[in-house]
Amino acid sequence: MAPYGPRLVVPIDVKKKPWEQKLPLHNRWHPDIPPVAEVKTGEVFRVEMVDFSGGGITHDYTAEDIKHADPSVVHYLSGPIRVVGEDGIAAKPGDLLVVEILNLGPLPGDEWGYTATFDRENGGGFLTDHFPCATKAIWYFEGIYAYSPHIPGVRFPGLTHPGVIGTAPSMELLDIWNKRERDLEENGLQNLKLCEVLHSRPLANLPTPKGCRLGKIEDGTPEWEKIAREAARTIPGRENGGNCDIKNLSRGSKIYLPVFVDGANLSTGDMHFSQGDGEVSFCGAIEMSGFLELKCELIRGGMKEYLTPMGPTPLHVNPIFEIGPVEPRFSEWLVFEGISVDESGRQHYLDASVAYKRAVLNAIDYLSKFGYSKEQVYLLLSCCPCEGRISGIVDSPNACATLAIPTAIFDQDIRPKNNKVPVGPRIVRKPDVLKCTYDGNLPVTRNPSAST
Amino acid sequence: MAPYGPRLVVPIDVKKKPWEQKLPLHNRWHPDIPPVAEVKTGEVFRVEMVDFSGGGITHDYTAEDIKHADPSVVHYLSGPIRVVGEDGIAAKPGDLLVVEILNLGPLPGDEWGYTATFDRENGGGFLTDHFPCATKAIWYFEGIYAYSPHIPGVRFPGLTHPGVIGTAPSMELLDIWNKRERDLEENGLQNLKLCEVLHSRPLANLPTPKGCRLGKIEDGTPEWEKIAREAARTIPGRENGGNCDIKNLSRGSKIYLPVFVDGANLSTGDMHFSQGDGEVSFCGAIEMSGFLELKCELIRGGMKEYLTPMGPTPLHVNPIFEIGPVEPRFSEWLVFEGISVDESGRQHYLDASVAYKRAVLNAIDYLSKFGYSKEQVYLLLSCCPCEGRISGIVDSPNACATLAIPTAIFDQDIRPKNNKVPVGPRIVRKPDVLKCTYDGNLPVTRNPSAST
Amino acid sequence: MAPYGPRLVVPIDVKKKPWEQKLPLHNRWHPDIPPVAEVKTGEVFRVEMVDFSGGGITHDYTAEDIKHADPSVVHYLSGPIRVVGEDGIAAKPGDLLVVEILNLGPLPGDEWGYTATFDRENGGGFLTDHFPCATKAIWYFEGIYAYSPHIPGVRFPGLTHPGVIGTAPSMELLDIWNKRERDLEENGLQNLKLCEVLHSRPLANLPTPKGCRLGKIEDGTPEWEKIAREAARTIPGRENGGNCDIKNLSRGSKIYLPVFVDGANLSTGDMHFSQGDGEVSFCGAIEMSGFLELKCELIRGGMKEYLTPMGPTPLHVNPIFEIGPVEPRFSEWLVFEGISVDESGRQHYLDASVAYKRAVLNAIDYLSKFGYSKEQVYLLLSCCPCEGRISGIVDSPNACATLAIPTAIFDQDIRPKNNKVPVGPRIVRKPDVLKCTYDGNLPVTRNPSAST
Amino acid sequence: MAPYGPRLVVPIDVKKKPWEQKLPLHNRWHPDIPPVAEVKTGEVFRVEMVDFSGGGITHDYTAEDIKHADPSVVHYLSGPIRVVGEDGIAAKPGDLLVVEILNLGPLPGDEWGYTATFDRENGGGFLTDHFPCATKAIWYFEGIYAYSPHIPGVRFPGLTHPGVIGTAPSMELLDIWNKRERDLEENGLQNLKLCEVLHSRPLANLPTPKGCRLGKIEDGTPEWEKIAREAARTIPGRENGGNCDIKNLSRGSKIYLPVFVDGANLSTGDMHFSQGDGEVSFCGAIEMSGFLELKCELIRGGMKEYLTPMGPTPLHVNPIFEIGPVEPRFSEWLVFEGISVDESGRQHYLDASVAYKRAVLNAIDYLSKFGYSKEQVYLLLSCCPCEGRISGIVDSPNACATLAIPTAIFDQDIRPKNNKVPVGPRIVRKPDVLKCTYDGNLPVTRNPSAST
Repeated sequence: MAPYGPRLVVPIDVKKKPWEQKLPLHNRWHPDIPPVAEVKTGEVFRVEMVDFSGGGITHDYTAEDIKHADPSVVHYLSGPIRVVGEDGIAAKPGDLLVVEILNLGPLPGDEWGYTATFDRENGGGFLTDHFPCATKAIWYFEGIYAYSPHIPGVRFPGLTHPGVIGTAPSMELLDIWNKRERDLEENGLQNLKLCEVLHSRPLANLPTPKGCRLGKIEDGTPEWEKIAREAARTIPGRENGGNCDIKNLSRGSKIYLPVFVDGANLSTGDMHFSQGDGEVSFCGAIEMSGFLELKCELIRGGMKEYLTPMGPTPLHVNPIFEIGPVEPRFSEWLVFEGISVDESGRQHYLDASVAYKRAVLNAIDYLSKFGYSKEQVYLLLSCCPCEGRISGIVDSPNACATLAIPTAIFDQDIRPKNNKVPVGPRIVRKPDVLKCTYDGNLPVTRNPSAST
Repeated sequence: MAPYGPRLVVPIDVKKKPWEQKLPLHNRWHPDIPPVAEVKTGEVFRVEMVDFSGGGITHDYTAEDIKHADPSVVHYLSGPIRVVGEDGIAAKPGDLLVVEILNLGPLPGDEWGYTATFDRENGGGFLTDHFPCATKAIWYFEGIYAYSPHIPGVRFPGLTHPGVIGTAPSMELLDIWNKRERDLEENGLQNLKLCEVLHSRPLANLPTPKGCRLGKIEDGTPEWEKIAREAARTIPGRENGGNCDIKNLSRGSKIYLPVFVDGANLSTGDMHFSQGDGEVSFCGAIEMSGFLELKCELIRGGMKEYLTPMGPTPLHVNPIFEIGPVEPRFSEWLVFEGISVDESGRQHYLDASVAYKRAVLNAIDYLSKFGYSKEQVYLLLSCCPCEGRISGIVDSPNACATLAIPTAIFDQDIRPKNNKVPVGPRIVRKPDVLKCTYDGNLPVTRNPSAST
Repeated sequence: MAPYGPRLVVPIDVKKKPWEQKLPLHNRWHPDIPPVAEVKTGEVFRVEMVDFSGGGITHDYTAEDIKHADPSVVHYLSGPIRVVGEDGIAAKPGDLLVVEILNLGPLPGDEWGYTATFDRENGGGFLTDHFPCATKAIWYFEGIYAYSPHIPGVRFPGLTHPGVIGTAPSMELLDIWNKRERDLEENGLQNLKLCEVLHSRPLANLPTPKGCRLGKIEDGTPEWEKIAREAARTIPGRENGGNCDIKNLSRGSKIYLPVFVDGANLSTGDMHFSQGDGEVSFCGAIEMSGFLELKCELIRGGMKEYLTPMGPTPLHVNPIFEIGPVEPRFSEWLVFEGISVDESGRQHYLDASVAYKRAVLNAIDYLSKFGYSKEQVYLLLSCCPCEGRISGIVDSPNACATLAIPTAIFDQDIRPKNNKVPVGPRIVRKPDVLKCTYDGNLPVTRNPSAST
Repeated sequence: MAPYGPRLVVPIDVKKKPWEQKLPLHNRWHPDIPPVAEVKTGEVFRVEMVDFSGGGITHDYTAEDIKHADPSVVHYLSGPIRVVGEDGIAAKPGDLLVVEILNLGPLPGDEWGYTATFDRENGGGFLTDHFPCATKAIWYFEGIYAYSPHIPGVRFPGLTHPGVIGTAPSMELLDIWNKRERDLEENGLQNLKLCEVLHSRPLANLPTPKGCRLGKIEDGTPEWEKIAREAARTIPGRENGGNCDIKNLSRGSKIYLPVFVDGANLSTGDMHFSQGDGEVSFCGAIEMSGFLELKCELIRGGMKEYLTPMGPTPLHVNPIFEIGPVEPRFSEWLVFEGISVDESGRQHYLDASVAYKRAVLNAIDYLSKFGYSKEQVYLLLSCCPCEGRISGIVDSPNACATLAIPTAIFDQDIRPKNNKVPVGPRIVRKPDVLKCTYDGNLPVTRNPSAST
């Protein structure tokens, strides 16, 4: 082996199931999931990963796999990786783990991905009350670019990133998570007004042995039983980083993660070829398998030095990061505004989520005038390099959110023109996204004023 | 006069009061406020404006003027300006008014501004429960740059923009506004959970004759009395644009505004030398007087063609815009994350406002380690060119918001380093922001874990 | 006077002649031209300037003024400005003068400019053997944008900068200049092969009392006579900076100029609304009157510390500079290559000037296929924000130069397409540039292969 | 095989010699070198390549291999690749071949490169009269970044590109090349003044059977003998593209190459991890093996439609290209100027090569004050992402060239500061570049004014 090039510490064979991999994967956060590999600070290493579904969602041209996807199994993560200093001493709680993303991308031979929306009964998405059906689009990669036969007329360079990267929680932190999320799940519908506007369900995903994979801990053992009942689901981002779905964690970025357990126990997964801010369709990036080339450093005692807790305990921290130098470059953006008045016309109070929902809905309707179906645009805005901004958050009662779309990703000029939209008869370019029926009973939000 | 250069249609003398200006200003939205000027599509014209407070907030080195500012008088706007097509026909309801911002800046001889937080009893800001006192910092402009004697050690180029730009509402739209905001003001505290986390008050600012200025309509006349009781306050952004506080509405940007009344009746004001996404301290940009050079076009019938209503009536639209080509360029960003768990540790559901609050609090505490007071950082993050993103909005229950700060604005390297923060003893650079006491009784949110 | 805003140290009245200005202008470099103003380091000051011709070239729609322009009068400069430290001690030879360009732009009320090529008998331009006629295009400014009735179909934001900014030479440096340029003028045609490819004449412009203006030194006095015979012409950039025509010396840039005489004696002029790298048509930027807002610092002894002489004396130095943060942003560029083989097919040796000439000729012919006359493109490439690169300078015998053109400045897509150029019949959009006949006898270089 | 991912058409085994590869390489341009592979328009394919020296220059920490490198063997190219339309018809002379670079990078397991200067007797470099010795630095890649143990204190992201990409010349074009380069080699020293300033020798590299490799044509056969005597060397870029060393031919760029022979016969090689404009040290990029993912299109008859010949025949054309969307992003640049006065103080006439030489020399001396040896800086400026501009080319007699260096690549602030350079005692950081003695007799250009 050459003295250069990254050391492969987590290999993946995409033809195998997650539990058949040489180093078994896990899909929960828990301090007792044992490391599968060890790295030294300063060394360059390579981590490969399956897509978040572990192959459950396929390359087949159907959305049935999405409709019946099992949310209990996500996200299949590579790791945990134990981090040891050059002095041989493992990372300690209170340290700051610096992870530099030196490179990343799809796995050779597996250069494709998908974007989807779950059925409303199965997790939905940001706009699930408008779009309750399961849909899917397949994307193919041509080097830096992605294109989809299901969304003709767009192509864009990826800002590739791992949706999930985080350290293992301590038992104390895990207890905090479980308690607060259980409270929400039990009382949220009564207490929280946003639940009347955002319709993804359940409100929180609590620990469950169903679908649980714990890496080296064998299924069904007493240890597995105990951990599976405690281990946090991976869906939300939390104090340890995790599924933050931040599109800018790309080539050259540097993440400062808090360390809660000995060795830090870094895990990562859910690679995205590209994602828009918000990842609005939920299964909403271009989901794929992939690889990361990483280098770690440790700032000893760095949590106290750099991360201020914001909450009742010293564990209530959040990661920080630096953006890398090679993001795709766009100079022209069309921007949609939204304010915190919902589709029924009701006024909300400085609510950026409501404002962003309106901005996204505005963008979908607008773009649908140019020959796309609304489902195509919904998936597109979820995975293309668009930017979601909190523009104003103090002008009571309206938060103002904006969604900026780079115009260069379209093969037509999508800016407003004098007189009519240039496409003439509004025909959706074919084929459309792959789509299932919605068989549930929940009412759909229909915008009486929208174009059909 | 030369055949080139912009035509001055709204002149301002900053030594005069808003109601003494040659063309009197207004601070309300109402269809019956008469135009003070007329422009033709295609012509380049210049609009001057006072700062949002009309000189109420002064260059004096004290925050007393902020503490006692009268919210009923904001924002003093220039206009309305009637827009007429080259065919001599005025803009009509249903048209789209395209406003191109060709240039803008401070008024010559008045090259200064201020950033402030209101007292909690007087409107507060995004973090008023943490920072209840009135504070102020004065900024001076050196060409493209701003610096403040009250926040030493930072300097940055402005992304100058008007905080307020909008068209007049029709009576029908005005009624919608007044009804929905009254509902919020009356019932919001009971109904909305966000009110327990965001403490700016009142929830909405309803019409009031107090402080009302209506341009050419003389104070105290019967017409004035009627309009003053109906006219919408200018604080929130709404369907007509208005106080959206979008920092990217700068040189070269192009705004597509809906037209609700004959002539469009374009008004603008509240110039900002610079502002961060969110404008978190509320009086939070670098507020100043200034000028705009504009050019208008009309897309006849363009509302129906391009703006999809998102709500119960055809009036529930939002403006769209294109970003201009000369924004300041930064390549290195330090980014703070926040999730929708509040300072008490309570879990919220996909709430981007809560997540952004946490991200901003994280950034304030972090930067305060580098020799700034927290009040200095709060004002700085409100007015420097930082970016607030909705990174993840679907990973229940946590929204993930990020705040990206360009590192080049500091005269020190503010990235985490191995070992300790390099400043050694933590001393705040003097002078600090101008500051008043908070004399109210509301409890302050104290972060038990924060550095002091 | 306000305590903020720049102090006006050199005012200009564009209705007056250069010698009628309140502070008289000069158009030569000499150590004995007395300062007209004094500034302290740290203060922000404003310098106004006429266009390089001092009004000799007019707004009239004719190229006759270009054809008969008098080269002996250029460039009319504002200054010299004496620079004094905060300690009251003037800049000294050996210091480094740091000039920060805080802002700049056209003079209010004079928002227009011109781009031209001189007649071949009168200075010509980079391609004078191809384009021997005097031509002119008038540009108008709409805020950040320029457009020309003589080059329809393009509009672009300016990267405004002073063509000339420099310090006064010492007598020793002036002698060096005069000697080496005289040598060239006398022997260059025999000695230099480039003269057979680049046809601008004369090779160098030597001192002459004709047209000479020396600021406060009255015309015709004995002092004037002496200095006028010695003073260097301002056409080339030299060790003191001067007419470097670097388009990136724009807002926010910082120039480090060597100091050769007491007080530094800073002069500036030749404002350009916009210019392409190379300024190929010679009178080739968008030439205009304008203003600069500047701030100076002094690095005492900084020449020795930072500027290494590259030549036989310690005076053979060159300025360095930092680029500012607000240049216009383009993401899409079409690039033309050229190699050091001239139009006759003759091979040159690593000659970047020949390679760049070929790249520019390639671009002109290419763009002329899209409905522009070649004269229009020649002027356009001279003044639009295009970039000229020395891509390869070592691959004997061919230097490779590239010319990158931002595609967003055109109102049509100028990239190659499948099949034919989309304009169909090749008709030049009218009107064309203003143009005179060429009445000289020199042969024109005709490209036998070019389209006509 | 999967239906996605690029098809590997030219595989490379870096452990084998160029002539042992499965598809043999070639290092000459000639119409009769037979294709080794065929691709269809629209398909994505992968081409692998050795480094330009075919492994002749090694990873060993010595510069002896550089000193004794054999220039007759460069550059080992992959191809030719025959391009066929989707209609089955091969590319024809007169077509335009559109090559899109979808991705590229180092070969997995071979993530290192080198930058070097040849000995003056062996080709030298742009500054060979100043730096006559052979030197070498080894670079290692960490994902997007390169660092060198021989140039400590710098790290930068690569703008990776193939130095050589081109189509095969027709016999007619080849004859033109050979004739004009022979003329130069025979008469250039007498005729061209630049030879007195630029000292790389020979002036041109003429055809020679020595070291010649012709792909599928076996060495020593009569066919080989004939072709080897005619085939053009690959060192200069020419009408067919070739060794243009344009750093912007990176991910996402699109090159429009003229087609001179049936099938186009595309060849490529000489991969660069990174290169500065000019590639000043000659062996001056970060040279490496690598891969390209490409897609071709054909514009039938496109040469006539889009490429204007600039010379005596229709073959005197040059390629054009579009820049891709993911170049590394820098916001702060320190820029060095140079004018066309050479190191002896002699005036040249609008000579951009002389001006650029002075700018590069200025930069080397400047940066050497910050703890680098001059040899380190020379290699660094040759391979880091610096930009070389022709800023002014018309201000007789001085061309003005600029060299812009991104400051973020250094681990120290290299901008001028008040007072002294901050490093205190000027010590070169160790280790230095690998270096041989210069044993020739040619005089070295010593700058009497330079720091030592």
